[in-house]
Amino acid sequence: CKVHKICVLPGDGIGPEIMEVATQALSVAGGKEGETFEYKQCLIGGAAIDATGKPLPDETLEVAKQSNAVLLAAIGGYKWDTLPSAQRPERGLLAIRAGLNAFANLRPAIVPRQLADSSPLKRELVEGVDILIVRELVGGIYFGQPRGFGTNEKGERIGYNTDVYSEPEVERIARVAFEAARKRGKRLCSVEKSNVLEVSQLWKEVVIRVGAEYPDVELSHMYIDNAAMQLLRNPKYFDVIVTGNIFGDILSDEASMLAGSLGLLPSASISGSGPGIYEPVHGSAPDIAGKDLANPLAMVLSAAMMCRYDLAIPKVADRLEAAVNAVLDAGLRTADIYKAGTPNTRLVKCSEMGAELMKHL
Amino acid sequence: CKVHKICVLPGDGIGPEIMEVATQALSVAGGKEGETFEYKQCLIGGAAIDATGKPLPDETLEVAKQSNAVLLAAIGGYKWDTLPSAQRPERGLLAIRAGLNAFANLRPAIVPRQLADSSPLKRELVEGVDILIVRELVGGIYFGQPRGFGTNEKGERIGYNTDVYSEPEVERIARVAFEAARKRGKRLCSVEKSNVLEVSQLWKEVVIRVGAEYPDVELSHMYIDNAAMQLLRNPKYFDVIVTGNIFGDILSDEASMLAGSLGLLPSASISGSGPGIYEPVHGSAPDIAGKDLANPLAMVLSAAMMCRYDLAIPKVADRLEAAVNAVLDAGLRTADIYKAGTPNTRLVKCSEMGAELMKHL
Ligand SMILES: CC(C)[C@H](C(=O)O)[C@@H](O)C(=O)O
Ligand SMILES: CC(C)[C@H](C(=O)O)[C@@H](O)C(=O)O
Repeated sequence: CKVHKICVLPGDGIGPEIMEVATQALSVAGGKEGETFEYKQCLIGGAAIDATGKPLPDETLEVAKQSNAVLLAAIGGYKWDTLPSAQRPERGLLAIRAGLNAFANLRPAIVPRQLADSSPLKRELVEGVDILIVRELVGGIYFGQPRGFGTNEKGERIGYNTDVYSEPEVERIARVAFEAARKRGKRLCSVEKSNVLEVSQLWKEVVIRVGAEYPDVELSHMYIDNAAMQLLRNPKYFDVIVTGNIFGDILSDEASMLAGSLGLLPSASISGSGPGIYEPVHGSAPDIAGKDLANPLAMVLSAAMMCRYDLAIPKVADRLEAAVNAVLDAGLRTADIYKAGTPNTRLVKCSEMGAELMKHL
Repeated sequence: CKVHKICVLPGDGIGPEIMEVATQALSVAGGKEGETFEYKQCLIGGAAIDATGKPLPDETLEVAKQSNAVLLAAIGGYKWDTLPSAQRPERGLLAIRAGLNAFANLRPAIVPRQLADSSPLKRELVEGVDILIVRELVGGIYFGQPRGFGTNEKGERIGYNTDVYSEPEVERIARVAFEAARKRGKRLCSVEKSNVLEVSQLWKEVVIRVGAEYPDVELSHMYIDNAAMQLLRNPKYFDVIVTGNIFGDILSDEASMLAGSLGLLPSASISGSGPGIYEPVHGSAPDIAGKDLANPLAMVLSAAMMCRYDLAIPKVADRLEAAVNAVLDAGLRTADIYKAGTPNTRLVKCSEMGAELMKHL
């Protein structure tokens, strides 16, 4: 038992409301296991822009680096949408990922049995789906140089970006994915576009090489366009998916819709050495901010992932996850996951969901 | 009435079987309207590699350029999968697109009412879906320079590609999309990743500028990750989508799954000046090649698109489309779209589907 230093970034929109529930739940669950948390709250995103002019103040990154893990709620909102893109809230997100070298984004796409009917896909296709998407998060076209605006040889104005991966970058993300697959269904699908792109050919080559060290994991390869199809045609085919930054952005959002709602999906962005970033998949939902309508469960499940990965206190994670299951079994539903007419369910506010959750901890 | 010169590229796998049906149907339908077709058959893909060593022989490109339109069936197969990527069948496809400057790929994602139940999505979500995806096809990361392999400043091996668009490139594809939207539901959604990529910022800026000329078309913007979600959450939201080469590759394949099967989906790749390329969305299906099991309908519908766009003989297109509808209404289903137990349907072979189609022309 020790004190875990958590950098808390509530961010914008519904962020503060759901963070409130998550830190409370974490403290209670931790208490039962003799674990203590010390929270340092910092600014990021729109809130940071308003207060300091920057989406990621230096102080926030400093505190984050000195913590054991970072809990991030959500950033962005209409208010900052008209700023030049280099000063927008999203930049804070990209900057903290890069600043902490959080290169591996783990996004489970699980269809909770209590909500299988809210998937846009037919129930028989999604029931039991349990996919882990491992997305490279600090490389590829998001960060590749050169990038910018210029003119081509015809004198026409152009915009350009570079999609680039180095061998060590692919190697480390491949290792994270193989290790994860080894602990799960032992199947890994690497997604790229090697029939067209050199960056993907390097990707595939390195993944195959690393795969030789994991003979117990079945490795397959799929083009991104086909993966976007197969995720709908037969989602149960997938166990772990590993892919680059932009393909991972697209695929993980597509996969999250299998669950019908983003309201229960957590994510972890880990670095292997320093603190990781734990955040829900959903956004800041500015339209419902401050109205006590938000769903805090994905934030709570993100805190659970934090306990499991960075803090290595799996019993606290178990408690948090069990409590989420219990409130869902009890039929409690925030507006985003409520479907009028479903028997034994009840529409609740964010604060009520939080209060019920505490009872089950 | 005149003679339409068609460059016919059967390609690999099931290509020859379905092309046979499509050209026959085209001749019969054309005959009723006094239109005549002159077919010149050429090599592309694996067949071309075997015969000439090149996936797109110069002669094929020459004939294509001198024709009024190109009908392409499908390319590729296991046999050529181990060749170095620069010599693979897909390169023939990329080369003919670039060679004909076929910059606008039009892919309708329509859920045919006869098959709404075969979608992985719930019927109420997909019934009536009618999306047209306009994908830029000869630019972006597929063709951007520089590309290749090298070493970075740390001496590590890298693979890299450049995603680049110029103003005129975006302008011309935007115009195609706005014109198409004007003739349909008058709504255009431009998909990019302008919160991260400069190439997308240029894209968005130019689309907005072109949009000023189309005040009757409602323009919206969506990030690619969100578009991949919304296509599942609420596909009926979309009318026309315009996007770049790689995002279009992914989105159009995802959208095609809304129909449950690729068996009925045609595509057109047009240049605005020279001949366009008309091909089914599905691949060469080497596993069922030569077994008379293929579905020829997407190829026939591609021929119909050709009549409508390049040849400007819409009555022939109407006849082909009506015949496809008629065989589906009559309950005929090839294996790919057959679902045992569906009342009033019958499993047929490719040749029988073709023969029935002729009866309805
Ligand atoms: C907000 C945006 C920059 C971000 C990304 O593209 O990575 C988001 O879509 C995500 O997936 O976390
Ligand atoms: C075969 C491949 C090169 C091609 C592409 O990526 O464009 C295909 O996926 C398509 O969409 O026509």
